[in-house]
Amino acid sequence: MRLSQNFTHTLREAPADEVSRNAQLLIRAGFVYKVMAGVYAYTPLGLRVVENLKQIVREEMNAIGGQELIMTNLQAKEPWEETTRWSDEVVDIWFKTKLQDGTDLGLAWSHEEAILAMMRQYVQSYKDLPIKVYQFQTKLRNELRAKAGIMRGREFLMKDMYSLHSSAEDLDAFYNQSIEAYKRCYERFGIGDETFVTFASGGAFTKFSHEFQTICDAGEDILYVHRGKNIAVNEEVLDEAVKELGISKDELEKVKSAEVGNIFNFGTEKCDQMNLRFTDKDGTEKSIYLGSYGIGITRVMGVIVEKFADDKGIVWPEHIAPAKVYMVQIGQESKAVADALYDELMGKGIEVIYDDRDERPGAKFADSELMGIPYRITVSDRLLGDEKFELTPRSTGLAELLTREELLAKLG
Amino acid sequence: MRLSQNFTHTLREAPADEVSRNAQLLIRAGFVYKVMAGVYAYTPLGLRVVENLKQIVREEMNAIGGQELIMTNLQAKEPWEETTRWSDEVVDIWFKTKLQDGTDLGLAWSHEEAILAMMRQYVQSYKDLPIKVYQFQTKLRNELRAKAGIMRGREFLMKDMYSLHSSAEDLDAFYNQSIEAYKRCYERFGIGDETFVTFASGGAFTKFSHEFQTICDAGEDILYVHRGKNIAVNEEVLDEAVKELGISKDELEKVKSAEVGNIFNFGTEKCDQMNLRFTDKDGTEKSIYLGSYGIGITRVMGVIVEKFADDKGIVWPEHIAPAKVYMVQIGQESKAVADALYDELMGKGIEVIYDDRDERPGAKFADSELMGIPYRITVSDRLLGDEKFELTPRSTGLAELLTREELLAKLG
Repeated sequence: MRLSQNFTHTLREAPADEVSRNAQLLIRAGFVYKVMAGVYAYTPLGLRVVENLKQIVREEMNAIGGQELIMTNLQAKEPWEETTRWSDEVVDIWFKTKLQDGTDLGLAWSHEEAILAMMRQYVQSYKDLPIKVYQFQTKLRNELRAKAGIMRGREFLMKDMYSLHSSAEDLDAFYNQSIEAYKRCYERFGIGDETFVTFASGGAFTKFSHEFQTICDAGEDILYVHRGKNIAVNEEVLDEAVKELGISKDELEKVKSAEVGNIFNFGTEKCDQMNLRFTDKDGTEKSIYLGSYGIGITRVMGVIVEKFADDKGIVWPEHIAPAKVYMVQIGQESKAVADALYDELMGKGIEVIYDDRDERPGAKFADSELMGIPYRITVSDRLLGDEKFELTPRSTGLAELLTREELLAKLG
Repeated sequence: MRLSQNFTHTLREAPADEVSRNAQLLIRAGFVYKVMAGVYAYTPLGLRVVENLKQIVREEMNAIGGQELIMTNLQAKEPWEETTRWSDEVVDIWFKTKLQDGTDLGLAWSHEEAILAMMRQYVQSYKDLPIKVYQFQTKLRNELRAKAGIMRGREFLMKDMYSLHSSAEDLDAFYNQSIEAYKRCYERFGIGDETFVTFASGGAFTKFSHEFQTICDAGEDILYVHRGKNIAVNEEVLDEAVKELGISKDELEKVKSAEVGNIFNFGTEKCDQMNLRFTDKDGTEKSIYLGSYGIGITRVMGVIVEKFADDKGIVWPEHIAPAKVYMVQIGQESKAVADALYDELMGKGIEVIYDDRDERPGAKFADSELMGIPYRITVSDRLLGDEKFELTPRSTGLAELLTREELLAKLG
C-alpha cells in the first residue's frame, strides 16, 4: 500500500470521549473509526488485521473439520423462546426491532438457538452426525456501558463454532481437539506464551467451562496462573479448581487477564430444550450433544494492542500486522531505488506500507511507530551513498545498516 | 469437499411458504436455509458462491484504486437527520432499535451518510482527495413484502463503493472507470452478454442514473435493449432517453430484467448537506463531489439461479460455482481410483465435490444436477474396465468418455 493512497491519516489526539487505550491508539493510527461508544468501523489498515486474524482461525477450524457458513443478524423470536433466552430478563443485551407488520425480531448476539433451529432441517439420523460448523459473524450486543474500546463492543466480529454429536465421548474428543486448535490460533496470533487454558465456572453439564485468557493489564478478569502446567484458574472458581486439579494456591501467580476465547460443553440440555434429536442405528430416538466455541476476533485485536503497545504506539506481532514492512523514503535520488524495492518486495508477497508522502522524515518515523509495523526500512540519499539500507524492528527499535542482499535475506 | 462431510442434504421439496424459484432451488440444493421471509443463511455450499462473487468484485474494485474497509450495522441517528433520511416517511425500510438508555439507533440499509460522517475526520485539503472506498456489508431493509427469495431480501450482502472528488471532471472520469469495472464483473460472473448499462431515472445532478440490468424473466423491471449499441433504457425513462440518445424505439427490444448493480452521481448535493468540504490549493473552501456504486452480491446470485436454472436444477457459471467438478463414484474397485483422482484435482487447485456417500448412482446424478456443478465426472467399475472416465458438462448434459490424460487436459 502506498500511504499517499490511504485515506486515513494519523491523528495527534484520539476523540475526547474515548477512554480505552486500545481504541485511542487504533483511532490515532488510522485503524478504526469510532461511530459511537462501542461501535467502530474498520478502515483499510484495520480490516487487514481483522482479515489476518480471520484467516488464521479459518485455517485452524478447517484443519479440525469445521465447515464455514454464515448465519443471519435478523433472528426470529420462536427458537429463542424455546430456551427462555428471548426474555430480556434472561438475556439483558438484546437489541430488538420489528417488521412492518409488528412481528418482533432480535438482532443476533449469539447463534446457538439459530443454529439448532436450522439443524432440525438437516439432522434426523446418526448418519448426519457429527456436524462442526463455524462462522465469522457480526454480533450486536446492547451493552449498558461500552468503555473498553474494541475489547467489548456493542458491534463486534466473532468466530463462533458449534458441534453436534451422537455421544458424550464424541463431543469430548472434538472438544479436546478444539482446545488444541485454539492454542495454535493464539500461538500464530503472537500471544501463545501468555495465553492459558483457564478453568472457569461451568455450565449445565460440566464442572468447569474452559476459557482462554491472555495476561493483560487492561483485562477484566483475575487469573491464577500455573506456568509449569501451562494452565490457569479464573478467580471465580479458584477454591473448587485447586481442589479438583490437585494443585496448591501457592504455586499460582495472580495476574490480570482478558478473555480471548471460550469453549462450552452444553451436554444434551440445549438440543433437548429445542427438541432436536436423532435416530440411532438401533432405531431409537436419542439426545444430541452440543459444544460451542467462540473467539472474539476484534476483541483479540484489542487485547493485542493493549498488551504490546509502548509509549510510541502499537506493536503488531508479525503474522497479524497489516504489513510486514513500513518503508520510509528520504531525499530525491533514492526515490527510484525505493520504488524498485517496493515493487520487488510486493512481488515476493511481502506486504509493504510505502510512505511515499511529501512529509518530514520525523513525521514518517513517528507514524511508522504509531502504526506498529514490524519492520521499518529507511531508503535515503545519504545511506545509498554507502549502498546501505536501514532496517529497524519495531519491537526492539535497534537499527541495522544492511546491503540490499542482506536486507532481502533478512526479510525473506 | 467430500459430500459425506457436508451437513446439508438435498431436499425433494422446498418449504411450502417459499414462492420464489431461486430460493426454492437454493434451499432444495442445500445452498441456503430460510430463517424467515427475506432472511436466508448461507450454508458452506452457498457461502462458496458468495465468496467467489465477492472475490471477483474485490479484484475489480482494487484494480480501479478502491480501498476495502468495513463500516457498521449500528447507525447513529444524527448523520441521517442531516439529509432528512432518518425519517420513516422519507426512507420506509428502516429497521430501528434503541440503546438501553433510550438512544435511537438505525440498522444500516445503506451507508452514504455513515461514510460522509466518517470522512469529516479525514478530509480537509485537496491533498486528501480523491478517495475511493468500498465494503462488503450486510444490509438490513425492512421490506413490506419479501417474496423474491435472495433477489430482494430483508438481510442481504452488498458491495457498496463511494468516491469523493474535488471536481466534477474527476468524478466523471472515475464514474466511467467504474462502469468498465462493473462490466468486467458481470463478464466474469458469466452474465456479461445479457447485462446492459441501462439509462434510468436520474438523481440530483444528472439527467439519468445508470443501472446494470440483466435479462431475466424473474426480474421486476421492463427494459428496452439496443443490442447493437450494447445499451438499454429502463421503461421509466424511455421517451426521454430515446430522444437524448438519438435512437428510435423501433430499434429496441422489450425484455424483462433484474437490476444487478447501480451507480449514482450525487454531484455536490450530499456532501453539501452534510457540511463536508475541502480547502483547495488557492485556500478557498469548495464542495466535494460524491459517487456511489452498488452491486447486490446475494441478489446477483439469485438472478444467476433464475436465469440459468433448468428443470433439473441450478446451472452455475464456472467462475462462481462452489466447485468446478462433481465426482460420482460407483462400485467397489473404482473407489481407490476416485480417491486418487480427487486428491490430484484438489492438489492442482481444481475444486471438487466428491460424492462419496453411500447412495444409489441415480440419486448422486440427480444431486449433481440439482446443485448445478459445471462438470460431472463419473468414476465407475464398469468404465474403468475400459480405462475410461465419463465427463458431463452440466450446461449441455452431453457425456464424453475420456482417458485419464484426456480428462485432466480438459479440466486443466
